[in-house]
This record gives sequence, C-alpha cells and structure tokens, in this order.
Amino acid sequence: MVNQDIQKDNPKVVHAFDIEDLGDKAVYCRCWRSKKFPFCDGAHTKHNEETGDNVGPLIVKKKES
Amino acid sequence: MVNQDIQKDNPKVVHAFDIEDLGDKAVYCRCWRSKKFPFCDGAHTKHNEETGDNVGPLIVKKKES
Repeated sequence: MVNQDIQKDNPKVVHAFDIEDLGDKAVYCRCWRSKKFPFCDGAHTKHNEETGDNVGPLIVKKKES
Repeated sequence: MVNQDIQKDNPKVVHAFDIEDLGDKAVYCRCWRSKKFPFCDGAHTKHNEETGDNVGPLIVKKKES
C-alpha cells in the first residue's frame, strides 16, 4: 500500500493545479506521508529512514528561483 | 515500501521541473509504478485494483487547457 491514510474514502486521489497559480516554487509530496499533502513537508525523510525506501518530492519552479 | 524499483541506487529520488518548460499540461506519477516515471502512464489503475490502494497522479496544467 503506497497511501496508508490520505483521503481513504476517495477511490483515486488526484490533484490538479493551474500553472498560473503556482508562484515561484511548489514542492509536491510523492511519499504520501506529508501532513500537508499534496505538498511536501519533509515526511519522506522519516519514511525513508524507517523503511529503507528512497522516495522524494516533485519540485515545480520558475527558472530563476 | 512506496517505491519498489525506480532508481533504487539513488538514496532519494527527487525531480525538479521549470514551469517555463511544462507546456500546456503535465501529469506526474505518484504511485511509483509508471514505466514513464516521473510521468504518469496510468499504472496507478492496475496498482489500485491489485492492492486496494487509492493513489492517483498530480496534474499541472495551463488554466484554459
């Protein structure tokens, strides 16, 4: 199970963002452990340490930032 | 284990994209089963069916597309 407790009543958790609303930088969670999901809060570090996994976030940013 | 076989030699798999390079729409994998990782190829459907999970992608798109 990749996602243990985020929106478990939702058959498929999809998020969509408009590029125009992103600001300079957005960091998105891909470990499904973030308390700020869909945004990264660094929870992957603890998850990786505890499980030997190697997951990390997706970063979408403006070129110069 | 969230990520079973993507870049397992890499201690933390992080991807970064520049907003200027995104085009109209990008769909990013969050189930770590896509053969086109970091992009979604629909693999979450099979994963969810086989495991009872409910993961889905992250979509970043231009407002009108």
